[in-house]
Amino acid sequence: MIIKMKKEATKKQYKKLEEFLESKNLEIRDVSSKLIHIFGIIGDTSSFEPEDLYAFEGVDEVTRVSTPFKKASRSFKKENTVIKFKNGIEIGSHQFVMMSGPCSVESEEQMRTIAKTVKESGAHILRGGAYKPRTSPYAFQGLKEEGLKILRKVGDEFDLLVVTEIPSADLLPLFEKYVDIIQVGARNMQNFELMKALGKSTKPILLKRGLSATIEEWLMSAEYIMNGGNEQIIMCERGIRTFEKYTRNTLDISAVLSIKELSHLPVIIDPSHAAGRWSMIEKLSLASLAVGADGLIVEVHNNPEHALSDGAQSLKPKKYLHMVDKLKELSTLLGKDFR
Amino acid sequence: MIIKMKKEATKKQYKKLEEFLESKNLEIRDVSSKLIHIFGIIGDTSSFEPEDLYAFEGVDEVTRVSTPFKKASRSFKKENTVIKFKNGIEIGSHQFVMMSGPCSVESEEQMRTIAKTVKESGAHILRGGAYKPRTSPYAFQGLKEEGLKILRKVGDEFDLLVVTEIPSADLLPLFEKYVDIIQVGARNMQNFELMKALGKSTKPILLKRGLSATIEEWLMSAEYIMNGGNEQIIMCERGIRTFEKYTRNTLDISAVLSIKELSHLPVIIDPSHAAGRWSMIEKLSLASLAVGADGLIVEVHNNPEHALSDGAQSLKPKKYLHMVDKLKELSTLLGKDFR
Amino acid sequence: MIIKMKKEATKKQYKKLEEFLESKNLEIRDVSSKLIHIFGIIGDTSSFEPEDLYAFEGVDEVTRVSTPFKKASRSFKKENTVIKFKNGIEIGSHQFVMMSGPCSVESEEQMRTIAKTVKESGAHILRGGAYKPRTSPYAFQGLKEEGLKILRKVGDEFDLLVVTEIPSADLLPLFEKYVDIIQVGARNMQNFELMKALGKSTKPILLKRGLSATIEEWLMSAEYIMNGGNEQIIMCERGIRTFEKYTRNTLDISAVLSIKELSHLPVIIDPSHAAGRWSMIEKLSLASLAVGADGLIVEVHNNPEHALSDGAQSLKPKKYLHMVDKLKELSTLLGKDFR
Amino acid sequence: MIIKMKKEATKKQYKKLEEFLESKNLEIRDVSSKLIHIFGIIGDTSSFEPEDLYAFEGVDEVTRVSTPFKKASRSFKKENTVIKFKNGIEIGSHQFVMMSGPCSVESEEQMRTIAKTVKESGAHILRGGAYKPRTSPYAFQGLKEEGLKILRKVGDEFDLLVVTEIPSADLLPLFEKYVDIIQVGARNMQNFELMKALGKSTKPILLKRGLSATIEEWLMSAEYIMNGGNEQIIMCERGIRTFEKYTRNTLDISAVLSIKELSHLPVIIDPSHAAGRWSMIEKLSLASLAVGADGLIVEVHNNPEHALSDGAQSLKPKKYLHMVDKLKELSTLLGKDFR
Repeated sequence: MIIKMKKEATKKQYKKLEEFLESKNLEIRDVSSKLIHIFGIIGDTSSFEPEDLYAFEGVDEVTRVSTPFKKASRSFKKENTVIKFKNGIEIGSHQFVMMSGPCSVESEEQMRTIAKTVKESGAHILRGGAYKPRTSPYAFQGLKEEGLKILRKVGDEFDLLVVTEIPSADLLPLFEKYVDIIQVGARNMQNFELMKALGKSTKPILLKRGLSATIEEWLMSAEYIMNGGNEQIIMCERGIRTFEKYTRNTLDISAVLSIKELSHLPVIIDPSHAAGRWSMIEKLSLASLAVGADGLIVEVHNNPEHALSDGAQSLKPKKYLHMVDKLKELSTLLGKDFR
Repeated sequence: MIIKMKKEATKKQYKKLEEFLESKNLEIRDVSSKLIHIFGIIGDTSSFEPEDLYAFEGVDEVTRVSTPFKKASRSFKKENTVIKFKNGIEIGSHQFVMMSGPCSVESEEQMRTIAKTVKESGAHILRGGAYKPRTSPYAFQGLKEEGLKILRKVGDEFDLLVVTEIPSADLLPLFEKYVDIIQVGARNMQNFELMKALGKSTKPILLKRGLSATIEEWLMSAEYIMNGGNEQIIMCERGIRTFEKYTRNTLDISAVLSIKELSHLPVIIDPSHAAGRWSMIEKLSLASLAVGADGLIVEVHNNPEHALSDGAQSLKPKKYLHMVDKLKELSTLLGKDFR
Repeated sequence: MIIKMKKEATKKQYKKLEEFLESKNLEIRDVSSKLIHIFGIIGDTSSFEPEDLYAFEGVDEVTRVSTPFKKASRSFKKENTVIKFKNGIEIGSHQFVMMSGPCSVESEEQMRTIAKTVKESGAHILRGGAYKPRTSPYAFQGLKEEGLKILRKVGDEFDLLVVTEIPSADLLPLFEKYVDIIQVGARNMQNFELMKALGKSTKPILLKRGLSATIEEWLMSAEYIMNGGNEQIIMCERGIRTFEKYTRNTLDISAVLSIKELSHLPVIIDPSHAAGRWSMIEKLSLASLAVGADGLIVEVHNNPEHALSDGAQSLKPKKYLHMVDKLKELSTLLGKDFR
Repeated sequence: MIIKMKKEATKKQYKKLEEFLESKNLEIRDVSSKLIHIFGIIGDTSSFEPEDLYAFEGVDEVTRVSTPFKKASRSFKKENTVIKFKNGIEIGSHQFVMMSGPCSVESEEQMRTIAKTVKESGAHILRGGAYKPRTSPYAFQGLKEEGLKILRKVGDEFDLLVVTEIPSADLLPLFEKYVDIIQVGARNMQNFELMKALGKSTKPILLKRGLSATIEEWLMSAEYIMNGGNEQIIMCERGIRTFEKYTRNTLDISAVLSIKELSHLPVIIDPSHAAGRWSMIEKLSLASLAVGADGLIVEVHNNPEHALSDGAQSLKPKKYLHMVDKLKELSTLLGKDFR
């Protein structure tokens, strides 16, 4: 941590700050010039935020130079984390893993129809929302436990792993029972009570990036989960909020590279929520593979026009299968194993 | 809702859309010109999102023209909602209500010292965090239930109402027991499971705006609570995320006016979290009063340099009392009753 | 400047960086701990950007600790800059200065009608656009030189100073001839060729903040002008782009406080462009005065419904005069002299 | 255009609005329900902004349903615009066109060294800044005319087309003389006087997207140029400003798809400015090709550590040639012709 003092800071103000830092067992090293008074703080500063030091009169600016996440950082663990499943699927290795299915679980029949397409495509993971957090209390909120059961049943029928979103910590036992990968939605990324609960889970966590979250904040949420003991985390970029309105959100494709540089965790992309337009999904998926993502989570629907949510961003089976063909070709070129 | 069709939309595509809209009991009215094909949809569209219609091929653009919130809207209820407390405090009336206290409850002694200042200032509501959602799992997370007890005890001693933040729905019974106003933090604004739970509470809810939330989204979260049956909601603007880094967040002062135009709910300002710099709090508080806010929630600390969180934005008692004097003068000029 | 090196940085990489820094006559001071390698750079770093150092392999992160602006900074000049006009108006002193008039100069008659209201209100500066930069090439682009002449003529008739926007450097001679204060529009804030030209002007410059500009970038544009020799700059906050759509832009009211802390330059507020809604202007103007702005620039129109641009945000004379009454009362309370 | 009226709007207010619309030869069509009063406006609304209608009392909300750009729109011209050069290079066709070179022209020798690499890679367009708009007046501002001459000379030597940025309209004759493609920098995207001047140019224009510009605003700037008579425009996405700080800007890769849907103009990507980190350029370039961009503009430098600007984002020749190999492979797979 680097602290810049105000020109007019008094000796007394310096002393107060020094006392505080020493009480935290931090070492102080001076880097001042004639014009600017600066010192570097050496030691473990994780128990406070840089902002907290602005409470000291005389302090002008505080800058953190080490990353605030530890267990999630590449400097803590050099090798990539690989999440392995019983059926041979690996996220974070040389595989390019496809998760696909409808936005919402609507009925057993619907899930079976779509699961058939998913299986046919060569993918191994089925997605589908059972609990749907919607901005309007009047919109469809999901089939809930019934949805989880359908998802599990159809997943087993087609030998597919299943992934779905958890809305709150108290439902964790239910998710542990029915689900293979537990998804955290963008709006819950900083629901820290949920992160703490997931830290105790034995299931891999798919952690979506918050709508306006920085990569540092996103990794800090992963850190919460890892600090609880669960180190199986899949980061998922799903578009961030920007001023652009033609697309629902803006896919931050370089987030894949940022996560790979800063962390050892795998990272996948959700092009459906990022664009909000099915016409863009194939091209964005190809770009995701090209940039080095470990996989995709994509919405597929047999009848998007009557989907109970998010039909706009769902691919019809034919378009989905066309996209998968393209992805397989590109995987081969890039030395990736499409799964 | 207004739907613009693509030029190349086919008859079949029109028909599919019409069937869907009719199945929802919506009336369709044509407003097309020679160049553009547009129709207006009349009826209750709350069961789907405008985006959902993009799933229909042929649809080019969908625009909502009615607000998605109902119970929270000014057109639903003309008169201002006033939240009344037993001690005569009213939020949303001619009173300008001050809530003040430390960021975190740290000890009974600390709370007593600060409560004395709060009381002396003429304020009637004591704030203090018992559960602290922090971005780092390694930072101080609050005294939890112990903090709630201290807050209640000291509040009663000084005859002050108390307000504090709830981190998750399962703690609601505890908050019902100890607290007068239940605060929802910015990061939980779209934790819809929490909103649903608060809809069942008998306590007024202080609903902070999310870091990047639009006013519509913020009012939709209020709608969730109101839909559950609890109509006592105080909106709280606390700064939004922008590109500016000199202040921690950017106070959106016109949000007060937007809420007053769109809704009947009272709205207060938190200048401490907005600015993140104590040097700005007095001036921002005066501006908040001038713009028409119903009150303030401000951080005061007897010893901000050793506060366990957010010391940077806390006022010392002397500066706080100076600010209150200025606010009282301005209240008088503006015909408001400082409480 | 603080440089953090990568863990794996080689001796050769360190050496290359050191040679570069020494070639710039910068002193290097080590602040490394066992875990992190950091050094501070002391000296004049204005000839390069922190980003430039990322070109050196081994560099992990570079942080500027001194502000990049010099002449515009409060540490360069302690006392407030006051812009003085022949008629006694002072911007940056104890005066609260009102600039008002229509968005566009439309005709001599229109300007005369409005100037009468402006004069009657007790204001001394008339605004009005002669050159209108519009996002659409098909929208009204202003009366141009004819507009400047009308503005000057009507200003002289009513003994009002005049302020208007310059669209490009080649028109500077014309503006020098007709105008008292030269305004730079938000979209031109980083038109550095224009900034350089204005550095040679003898007229005060009203520098609007760019739509997404940080305060540092805004002050850097002031620095360009000051570096050219013109130190008479009035900063003007006019709302920034955020995700909120109910208001056209979001008034960053704390920008007034940021500028006052970082710089000695005066700062005013344009509530009309910030809100884009006339219903909000009175309240935002009162808040601007309360927060400590040195003045306002406000749109007034005798017939906003037929204004050729920006009618939505213009006040009618009656509402404008009502607002001025309120501002005068508040000025008196705050010890400011309304002009 | 769709206009929603306030519930309380009076007959007089309706009448005033109708009169205005009729004076603009617009047809009014009612789509009101019992609850909401709405009408659609049919005809040419390009002479005013939707916001202007808020000046009419009684108006609640105005929504544009047609795009404000005409000549730039896909509905105006169905086929892709292809920019053709004498040497067979085509932008907007089946070719994938590479523009590469240093950020700044520093010397003839430097340009010759880099041009050799560019030529060797199989690219046909050389980039290099002669006029450098920098945020600091103290930073290197480019070799100016001398830089243009060097660029031309070296371009001719190696039979490469040259592209460079124009800072202001008065330099257009010089650019016409020396340059093959004239670049508009992000900060000048809404310098409308410059757009008007470029409308008269005979050279293709490379129009960079503004830092916070929406795609609609970006296309409106293209519209300005096209309205002046120059229809040879290459759109260039170069990253937008977001809250993320690890990358300099955030590459909006879906902008390629948005432009292709909304317009007939070609669009390329500048990964160097988007990321600001050379480590990300190869991967982002591959993703750009995969998503369907018509080309790239990339920074290459023989000695980025001593570059006078933007060294951080420049590739060394070896890395650049490695990237080009990968791009060629991928071009082949995708049926594109790498140039």
